[in-house]
Amino acid sequence: MKELGIGLLGFGTVGAGVVEELQKNGEMIANRIGVKPVLRKIADVDLDRDRGVNVDRSMLTRDAESVINDPSISVVVELIGGTGIARKLILQALKAGKPVVTANKALLAEHGAEIFGQAAERKVDVWFEASVAGGIPIIRSLREGLVANRINGIYGILNGTCNYILSSMDKEQVTFEHALKDAQVAGYAEADPALDIDGIDTAHKAVLLASLAYGFHVPMSDVYVEGIRGISRTDIEYARGMGYKLKLLAVIKNESGEIEVRVHPTLIPVEHMLSSVSGVYNAIQVEGDVVGQTLYYGRGAGRYPTASAVISDIADVCRELAFGDIKRRYSFSWQKEEVKLKNMGQIESRYYLRASLLDKPGVFGQLATVLGQHQISIASVLQKERHAGKQVPVIVVTDRAKESDFDAAIADIDAMSAVGAKSVRIRIEDLG
Amino acid sequence: MKELGIGLLGFGTVGAGVVEELQKNGEMIANRIGVKPVLRKIADVDLDRDRGVNVDRSMLTRDAESVINDPSISVVVELIGGTGIARKLILQALKAGKPVVTANKALLAEHGAEIFGQAAERKVDVWFEASVAGGIPIIRSLREGLVANRINGIYGILNGTCNYILSSMDKEQVTFEHALKDAQVAGYAEADPALDIDGIDTAHKAVLLASLAYGFHVPMSDVYVEGIRGISRTDIEYARGMGYKLKLLAVIKNESGEIEVRVHPTLIPVEHMLSSVSGVYNAIQVEGDVVGQTLYYGRGAGRYPTASAVISDIADVCRELAFGDIKRRYSFSWQKEEVKLKNMGQIESRYYLRASLLDKPGVFGQLATVLGQHQISIASVLQKERHAGKQVPVIVVTDRAKESDFDAAIADIDAMSAVGAKSVRIRIEDLG
Repeated sequence: MKELGIGLLGFGTVGAGVVEELQKNGEMIANRIGVKPVLRKIADVDLDRDRGVNVDRSMLTRDAESVINDPSISVVVELIGGTGIARKLILQALKAGKPVVTANKALLAEHGAEIFGQAAERKVDVWFEASVAGGIPIIRSLREGLVANRINGIYGILNGTCNYILSSMDKEQVTFEHALKDAQVAGYAEADPALDIDGIDTAHKAVLLASLAYGFHVPMSDVYVEGIRGISRTDIEYARGMGYKLKLLAVIKNESGEIEVRVHPTLIPVEHMLSSVSGVYNAIQVEGDVVGQTLYYGRGAGRYPTASAVISDIADVCRELAFGDIKRRYSFSWQKEEVKLKNMGQIESRYYLRASLLDKPGVFGQLATVLGQHQISIASVLQKERHAGKQVPVIVVTDRAKESDFDAAIADIDAMSAVGAKSVRIRIEDLG
Repeated sequence: MKELGIGLLGFGTVGAGVVEELQKNGEMIANRIGVKPVLRKIADVDLDRDRGVNVDRSMLTRDAESVINDPSISVVVELIGGTGIARKLILQALKAGKPVVTANKALLAEHGAEIFGQAAERKVDVWFEASVAGGIPIIRSLREGLVANRINGIYGILNGTCNYILSSMDKEQVTFEHALKDAQVAGYAEADPALDIDGIDTAHKAVLLASLAYGFHVPMSDVYVEGIRGISRTDIEYARGMGYKLKLLAVIKNESGEIEVRVHPTLIPVEHMLSSVSGVYNAIQVEGDVVGQTLYYGRGAGRYPTASAVISDIADVCRELAFGDIKRRYSFSWQKEEVKLKNMGQIESRYYLRASLLDKPGVFGQLATVLGQHQISIASVLQKERHAGKQVPVIVVTDRAKESDFDAAIADIDAMSAVGAKSVRIRIEDLG
């Protein structure tokens, strides 16, 4: 059977998982695809650490460029991460005419135009199944499985760390800080968790999904991003009482050619399947104009699920190289559909608003008046506590309203003398 | 842009859906894949019926062979269904060297060896995404997305009619007969519903999934099939009280090289995501040794979801024809893994047993003794009604036991003089 050489850049957790699984299942994979991917070289700065996998020492090098330029290597797998050296090496590999497999969502989201531009110029391709939702084959499903569909919406739980934290806050009734610490102890959150909990990682993935869905590179700067740092248990509990669960959701919508891409804490109906996605799992609902609703679920990160996705790309690229159609297609069609991006002020949503109101006759009327002045109508109101003369939490759920109207309303509400603290706003998606 | 001619055999519900969606989204699809699929001919026995879609009358013909042999047609799409004329026409198309796209699960499950054999001989391929779980891209996910994985298990709700009936029985507390009639009125069940409710359709799909997962053609005759005709509301209600939902489940398992493929009413934990799949939706949980659990959900049948899957195959085959790699791969790798098929007696399961027992001291002891004699241990017992001297239902949930042992035990139990009616047995899957 024909063999193709694979070069690995980055021998960390995921890299070691790829090596381990290629050793374990390589024969089976070769039988399935009709060509054998053979790992030939691994580059990493640390050649000594034990990764729980045996490799011939002669395969290891500190010199990544020697891997890229090795003529026995046909496919370069980048698992270094980040937007620094990884960017430089991927561009080099593409320049050398070698297809690249990567799990690097940050790089593709922030420098996608450059990377995919280089790939198209050199007529090689970049494969990135592992960059969104780990082991879930969402890239293939969206690009090939749903090729017949205009994508009306994508709703994704795309960050396992955040979902683990929100699940703990909900189930074990702990604070955000407590849940974050638990996640760090369990190895589900980094020592510096900012990229995850501030929503950046989810936004990177949303950019890739939206770009695939609509055929143009959605700029990261046009994505509204709000993380989960500010979430309080109070709101999770109130929302639960009203039939909602709180998730950090990537929302991508196409309403008559106007696209919105946003990431923020979102209330979703408790009976919806996405609500039952807990812990480090990811899930993505994709709505196509032909197929209707579909949903994909699995582990979104970790050594093995990510290795599964990386190897699926290695397998496809080997099949293409072996059977001679490297020009078959590129990752993105780059055929921009007739769409334009909305800015955040233009989006419409239902809202959960928690205001801290003085418990005094007439005060709620003031709040309702402010909402009315901004064309926002109230769907329901909840006030559980009474404490005459003091501030109490009042929850208002609104009908669909424009974000810019809601911004203005919340500013007016927070300026009311009867309001004792900054109001909390959480967007609601009813998920059709 | 290059154009490729498509010939459609069968202008029924799904065929008309394919035509409609190719008209609506054809331009977009062509831009995405870089080649334009153009529908050139449609064969059907009925040229006059209104299908809710406009086609040039000159495209229609009663002569299917003229479509297959038309030199302007590169891809044949078979949407006639059944194992008669469809088989003959597919074999003809393959013989003529034309790739075939089909939604025909019955044909592929029952004559797969012949069809795929012919395809391999002629070096063309058969595409069948639409044959399992309608719009859900499960074939691509299993074959390409999870290529790195040994498949440990597949658990599928694969028949919308059955799931609709079981959901109604559960939610609206109606009998099987009532729910079936509702499904027929709603257009979700055929006038002759046998293929669906007797589990045959689910078994056809299970055969295709198992064949893909393990690389050999699993014979339909080796699949244990039990439908939902015998299901009573009583058992749905008792099971719900014990934390289970009843689903018609396709179960495919690989335990150390021993494969089991079976279809039967199954109790699954109520908190599992598959339990929340209701109505005509389908879902499939796939467990890979690398990726862990993944799940895929969507509409499993109907004009549009099926059209979405058919068109995804048309798109892929056009891309392959246009960019010159028709020999890239075949549907199945036919590299049988080191596995053998279990017969039903060898499988192991937990069981729900409802016995109709005389309410008299010592009778339950007799039942427990019989179970013990067959190496079956009891996990829990439920007896709600008391009616001294009469028969009452007693529910026993067992630990894991061998099917052949349980067969023997149930025969002994039904032979007890204190047992008033045939016992009910439902298998349980705890779904890890």
